[in-house]
Amino acid sequence: MYENGKPSVELAVAAVTLPDIQKTPDQRNIPIDRVGVKRVKYPIRVLDRANEIQHTVGEFTLLVDLPAHHKGTHMSRFLEILSENQGEVSVHSLPRILSQLRERLTAANAFLEVDFTLFVSKPAPVTGKVGMMGYHAGLRARAGAIDEMVMHVVIPVATLCPCSKEISAYGAHNQRGYVTIEVEATDHIWIEELIEMVEAASSAPLYPVLKRPDEKFVTEQAYQNPRFVEDMVREVAIAFNKDSRISRYKVEVENHESIHDHNAYAVIERTK
Amino acid sequence: MYENGKPSVELAVAAVTLPDIQKTPDQRNIPIDRVGVKRVKYPIRVLDRANEIQHTVGEFTLLVDLPAHHKGTHMSRFLEILSENQGEVSVHSLPRILSQLRERLTAANAFLEVDFTLFVSKPAPVTGKVGMMGYHAGLRARAGAIDEMVMHVVIPVATLCPCSKEISAYGAHNQRGYVTIEVEATDHIWIEELIEMVEAASSAPLYPVLKRPDEKFVTEQAYQNPRFVEDMVREVAIAFNKDSRISRYKVEVENHESIHDHNAYAVIERTK
Amino acid sequence: MYENGKPSVELAVAAVTLPDIQKTPDQRNIPIDRVGVKRVKYPIRVLDRANEIQHTVGEFTLLVDLPAHHKGTHMSRFLEILSENQGEVSVHSLPRILSQLRERLTAANAFLEVDFTLFVSKPAPVTGKVGMMGYHAGLRARAGAIDEMVMHVVIPVATLCPCSKEISAYGAHNQRGYVTIEVEATDHIWIEELIEMVEAASSAPLYPVLKRPDEKFVTEQAYQNPRFVEDMVREVAIAFNKDSRISRYKVEVENHESIHDHNAYAVIERTK
Amino acid sequence: MYENGKPSVELAVAAVTLPDIQKTPDQRNIPIDRVGVKRVKYPIRVLDRANEIQHTVGEFTLLVDLPAHHKGTHMSRFLEILSENQGEVSVHSLPRILSQLRERLTAANAFLEVDFTLFVSKPAPVTGKVGMMGYHAGLRARAGAIDEMVMHVVIPVATLCPCSKEISAYGAHNQRGYVTIEVEATDHIWIEELIEMVEAASSAPLYPVLKRPDEKFVTEQAYQNPRFVEDMVREVAIAFNKDSRISRYKVEVENHESIHDHNAYAVIERTK
Repeated sequence: MYENGKPSVELAVAAVTLPDIQKTPDQRNIPIDRVGVKRVKYPIRVLDRANEIQHTVGEFTLLVDLPAHHKGTHMSRFLEILSENQGEVSVHSLPRILSQLRERLTAANAFLEVDFTLFVSKPAPVTGKVGMMGYHAGLRARAGAIDEMVMHVVIPVATLCPCSKEISAYGAHNQRGYVTIEVEATDHIWIEELIEMVEAASSAPLYPVLKRPDEKFVTEQAYQNPRFVEDMVREVAIAFNKDSRISRYKVEVENHESIHDHNAYAVIERTK
Repeated sequence: MYENGKPSVELAVAAVTLPDIQKTPDQRNIPIDRVGVKRVKYPIRVLDRANEIQHTVGEFTLLVDLPAHHKGTHMSRFLEILSENQGEVSVHSLPRILSQLRERLTAANAFLEVDFTLFVSKPAPVTGKVGMMGYHAGLRARAGAIDEMVMHVVIPVATLCPCSKEISAYGAHNQRGYVTIEVEATDHIWIEELIEMVEAASSAPLYPVLKRPDEKFVTEQAYQNPRFVEDMVREVAIAFNKDSRISRYKVEVENHESIHDHNAYAVIERTK
Repeated sequence: MYENGKPSVELAVAAVTLPDIQKTPDQRNIPIDRVGVKRVKYPIRVLDRANEIQHTVGEFTLLVDLPAHHKGTHMSRFLEILSENQGEVSVHSLPRILSQLRERLTAANAFLEVDFTLFVSKPAPVTGKVGMMGYHAGLRARAGAIDEMVMHVVIPVATLCPCSKEISAYGAHNQRGYVTIEVEATDHIWIEELIEMVEAASSAPLYPVLKRPDEKFVTEQAYQNPRFVEDMVREVAIAFNKDSRISRYKVEVENHESIHDHNAYAVIERTK
Repeated sequence: MYENGKPSVELAVAAVTLPDIQKTPDQRNIPIDRVGVKRVKYPIRVLDRANEIQHTVGEFTLLVDLPAHHKGTHMSRFLEILSENQGEVSVHSLPRILSQLRERLTAANAFLEVDFTLFVSKPAPVTGKVGMMGYHAGLRARAGAIDEMVMHVVIPVATLCPCSKEISAYGAHNQRGYVTIEVEATDHIWIEELIEMVEAASSAPLYPVLKRPDEKFVTEQAYQNPRFVEDMVREVAIAFNKDSRISRYKVEVENHESIHDHNAYAVIERTK
């Protein structure tokens, strides 16, 4: 039936009439909340605040709900829709992809999540030496009974312990902490703006390139701005409370403590 | 001030009067939902269905809420409480740990999560050859305004594609899938029971040791029981719906498809 | 000393004369094999076989050796060199980057490793439906006493068990396996060529999009081409032995067995 | 053929004469360096320096070489051998397991690797408050043409930057670093001894529980003992050079820099 690994003509013809098992009726009477594909890698383009198109790598989850009377969804259609939209990720393309998912999979609700590395050009604080810093970012969107779009981004920061500073004759332990935020907005907001709000709430931001004068600057900046994980989540909450574009947020901070092998953690969630 | 890396007497005395920064009042007026420690490894003992104590490794998250007027929580107390409870994880110890967290951190609510490897002795289906299979399992509990305890476990299974079987002249693609369940119960239920319910819903269970007669058996068993991810979540839902001890559940299946590099996924969540 | 988070003029001036600790002599008389930076993310461009520039995300390790008499290397220079080379990854740029590392860090040897996702456009075997498949790939290069460049790529494939097929009345267990190859070549060779050689040695390749006729095709193809991990490494070894451009290789296969929770593994290494 | 998921008598009888595909001769004339199983979880017991048996979770790799004339190895025998040795990991059991692997798989060489969490009881430096700290440790052994056993352990430590301390008016950036060591010894050496040597070479060790006087102590200790990654690997190398029991070592340090999102890294390898 195969010649040199290629299907013969007969197979191609036969294929037309292959049964569609997914479409057969299901008697179990159990609807499925979400079904589809996960960990789909696709090259994507993202518009950044500098108005430039960034080419990066997206990892997608695409899901729909499935009514009780269908045995299965059609997995290949998720990939076809992704392929037809050519990897554009924007406020325009996501609603279109969700709408195509609902239509071509005859679903009431569609869900999309995409994660990617967003690069931000970042000058050192004193010398101005520029380098690129990659942030783990993404979007989670749904359409149907509820329409929503949530941005998320992980911002690594430096945190310096207020207690250690206060009680020690010199020095203070500090470390890398990871701030994970989820934000829902009523108006356009750049991921880069969110990153800046979080970095402003930290003991000091991280940088791709630091020369000695820069290292002196950030070391002293961190020592002057001690932050517990509790301070970090509160300072970010204050910034997000003030920004009228933000309607809902979640802020998590996880400090990779330099005095312990476990992590310190705090979270605040709020719907305005 | 230090001699040979040991603090001098002066330091030890001075320590008595070290200021407690965490306890200082906070003016920002922002309560924190949860704060504490994450990724704490501790040796634990778990009672299994065979009525034997299993020694395993726990990874803990311990959190409390923090009212607006406190600057910080006291992180070391979480570790002290864990240490005093000597790594026992049971329906008796968890409420006690939660109660101690609330008391000693003067918190309205306490949260605990622990993950561990649970070993189950498993005979091969034909030869009866016994081996140990390790499941990633755990508990998530809270006490305060809401009291709850949720079990979770990841059960790897074999799934064989009904569509592939139907349309192909011979063979059918099959693969390892991971079923992640969360279960809340009104009465005692063993994690081993949940594992059995999930394995019964699969194309075939996985085994630690299989001799050739066993391999023949599970190969044919899988071929006779084809399952989409949609079938998997529905079959588990049916089993959990029938069990009156289960009051709430979430079932996720992620198939590491052997024909794709991405995964097929489905989820059903239900509160009875 | 800081106003609004910006260093004052005094600081900027003082910075000019900051001591260079790294440059101070070291009395311990211990040379360091390799020192530098790891997990540096940078946007990169890679030329693919279709003669198109792919924009992707690189994760770099950049190292040099350090003679016994220096206390430390200058970490920021690694980042500056990466930044100046603007993320181009090619047979031309890597030797240039290595040469700059050796020169500006006054090192005898320089080492570079970069990992990225390489996308390959892949048509389904029957319908020809095209999708993108992302492979985890990379390069490892060194210059100095030894000059070498090694490509690596992870190719997910389907493997169907010959034993299971032979002993079972119907069906055969199959699964996703991961083939990791490292290749050193004396002449130009595309990563895409290596991927094709490995996929040809598998039970069946994986695809981004498969419609029903395609699924029938790959299911039957896998059933007709059973492969143990032992067969996989041998078939790849035969293909690499025949290719005169390949001077050294390592082939590892790890099968995520669909009948076990552990993996089957085999490796062959050879310098011609 | 199956009744209620159990194989019928016929199947059990038929099984006796199932063909052994693995044993069939192979014509490709390619020996395989190593073949076997990976990621096998098993409950194990390890003897610690306090002369107590620790129950922990092992993850095993078990491999043998395969001569050119055999098609495949017998995967289930690896699991049977592991099961028969009942999870004891010691200087006595490993040679026995390796010897059984060689014998029952008729192999010239056998290889074993096991990773586990080793708990060490650790008092705080001032208050003496005791907690458990879990280290990722393991052994890698082989028997046949070469007999060897290599211990490995990852020790998280605090490192404080000498450059940052020197150039800054106050404070110094510090962070968690991970020291990974591999050690081959000619005489018995406890993993706990290796951990102590590495911690003594750091700016400060990490602890499970620290009260305020302890936190003051380790903060000041770190400030007094600044260490680059270069210093860390050299200090560990000096300690390992002095210990006559150690015949070969590799020391890697990876600092999760609190001023950068990338890591600083250094490595020294030496065979005495």
